[in-house]
Amino acid sequence: MHFLVRGDYEVVKEKGWRVRSCAGDFEVAPGKMRVYREAREMPGVDLVIVALKTTSEGSYRELIGPLVREGTAILSIQNGLGSDEKLAELFGAERVLGGLAFVCINRIGPGEIHHSAHGIIRMGEFGRRGGERAEGIARMFRESGVPCEVLPDLKKGRWEKLMWNIPFNGLGAVMDLTTDRLIGSAAGREMVGRLIAEAMAAGEGDGVLFDLTVEGMVEKQIRATESMGAYRSSMLVDRQEGRAMEVEAILGEPWRRGVRAGAGVGLLGQVYAMAKVVEGERNAKG
Amino acid sequence: MHFLVRGDYEVVKEKGWRVRSCAGDFEVAPGKMRVYREAREMPGVDLVIVALKTTSEGSYRELIGPLVREGTAILSIQNGLGSDEKLAELFGAERVLGGLAFVCINRIGPGEIHHSAHGIIRMGEFGRRGGERAEGIARMFRESGVPCEVLPDLKKGRWEKLMWNIPFNGLGAVMDLTTDRLIGSAAGREMVGRLIAEAMAAGEGDGVLFDLTVEGMVEKQIRATESMGAYRSSMLVDRQEGRAMEVEAILGEPWRRGVRAGAGVGLLGQVYAMAKVVEGERNAKG
Repeated sequence: MHFLVRGDYEVVKEKGWRVRSCAGDFEVAPGKMRVYREAREMPGVDLVIVALKTTSEGSYRELIGPLVREGTAILSIQNGLGSDEKLAELFGAERVLGGLAFVCINRIGPGEIHHSAHGIIRMGEFGRRGGERAEGIARMFRESGVPCEVLPDLKKGRWEKLMWNIPFNGLGAVMDLTTDRLIGSAAGREMVGRLIAEAMAAGEGDGVLFDLTVEGMVEKQIRATESMGAYRSSMLVDRQEGRAMEVEAILGEPWRRGVRAGAGVGLLGQVYAMAKVVEGERNAKG
Repeated sequence: MHFLVRGDYEVVKEKGWRVRSCAGDFEVAPGKMRVYREAREMPGVDLVIVALKTTSEGSYRELIGPLVREGTAILSIQNGLGSDEKLAELFGAERVLGGLAFVCINRIGPGEIHHSAHGIIRMGEFGRRGGERAEGIARMFRESGVPCEVLPDLKKGRWEKLMWNIPFNGLGAVMDLTTDRLIGSAAGREMVGRLIAEAMAAGEGDGVLFDLTVEGMVEKQIRATESMGAYRSSMLVDRQEGRAMEVEAILGEPWRRGVRAGAGVGLLGQVYAMAKVVEGERNAKG
């Protein structure tokens, strides 16, 4: 196992990782892994797991290129829409798998991770049904203690995850509200529900057939969120700490696909526009 | 001069007010004024100046009623739309004048006020042109060192002030952004501009003829805001301190008048809905 660790390199090299987890705390000792600061120092590998923020899209070639050799698969465990397509374009569609992490996790300091809830990975082949390769990777995750399932339809899986990310990352970040506050009033639940309905319309326009009705989807997402307490979504954490938010993957690309399909995505468009105002503010500061 | 002081009564009774002002700091010694904790202890007066938050609308009868006698005028220096109508309904339209305070002012502690910029009052008769009475009141303000002008058209004045309050109080409060951050990027200025355009359409539908074009109005509001620095609007302060925000006067009533007139007020409606989500959150907490 080779880890590309950029910002936290010094700390992780010396002390490894400390993980505070709802499933039991643990440490990864520095001797147990090889860490690198630069991708070009790394060898070619069988599988690249991409856990970058989607805002790093412009660095894919530099960060992933050196690891790719004949037969290398690339698994993009990233939020939202667009990263699979971008990786396929750069490295060839046949290499690409996409994964979705259903997990509440924050980096709380250099080399320190807090895992507060959930923890399953769902993954699939890009534009193909999953077969032997996907099943093999899923087995590796499971054997490492991480629940993992192969999705028959990655795009559907991505859209289903957006049913949470659009309201709770997107709306939460532009309004500066933790998840409990978004679902803590009838007005909040109504707005979350409207966003989910719009996101479903956009996903249907993009060719996805959801298993649930709008009402069923809204209820499911709100229920899942109740167990998280006052959770700061990743986008809200990014806003509060002045870092780039995943605006395009979580809001921009879903909204564009909705518009292209003629779906009613007015509130989604508004939240997207507001996210750009928050980003503009960050850019003006930085 | 009689002052009804509720929350800060003890402090003000004992120490008066301390005002930190961009126009020069000063104190109002406790011996210089009569302060009351309850309206029913106060005498009838010639002029009631109502500087309540519009969210206190339900207390008008209790707080103002005891002060009203034959010939009493009521000047409501309050934000947004709806308070003049409510006072007219309770005490008779002929008593009512409305005023607009163009001032950046915050209560920073019990009996402590910070005045950071601007400071003119514009006032007018409710539903009538201003005459001798309005001019007399304006003169009193000016003789006290407060610039004051009589407006020929109070409703127009209220709508013009909303051109600032809707974007900077409303949008700023739902996005948790100070004024400099709303105008600090092209995306922010564009959204502020769209809200002003919608607010103008709603005002026109309500019978107001503005002197400026949309472009001129947007430029004027943004320019006025640049001089304020990182100003926390009153609604943002209310949000951050967990107090009721003036949602109906600043967003709800303007939006309803826009909808009634068939004006395009989609973004305003969205901001209004988001403000109710923030309020819902506050209500759930309190």
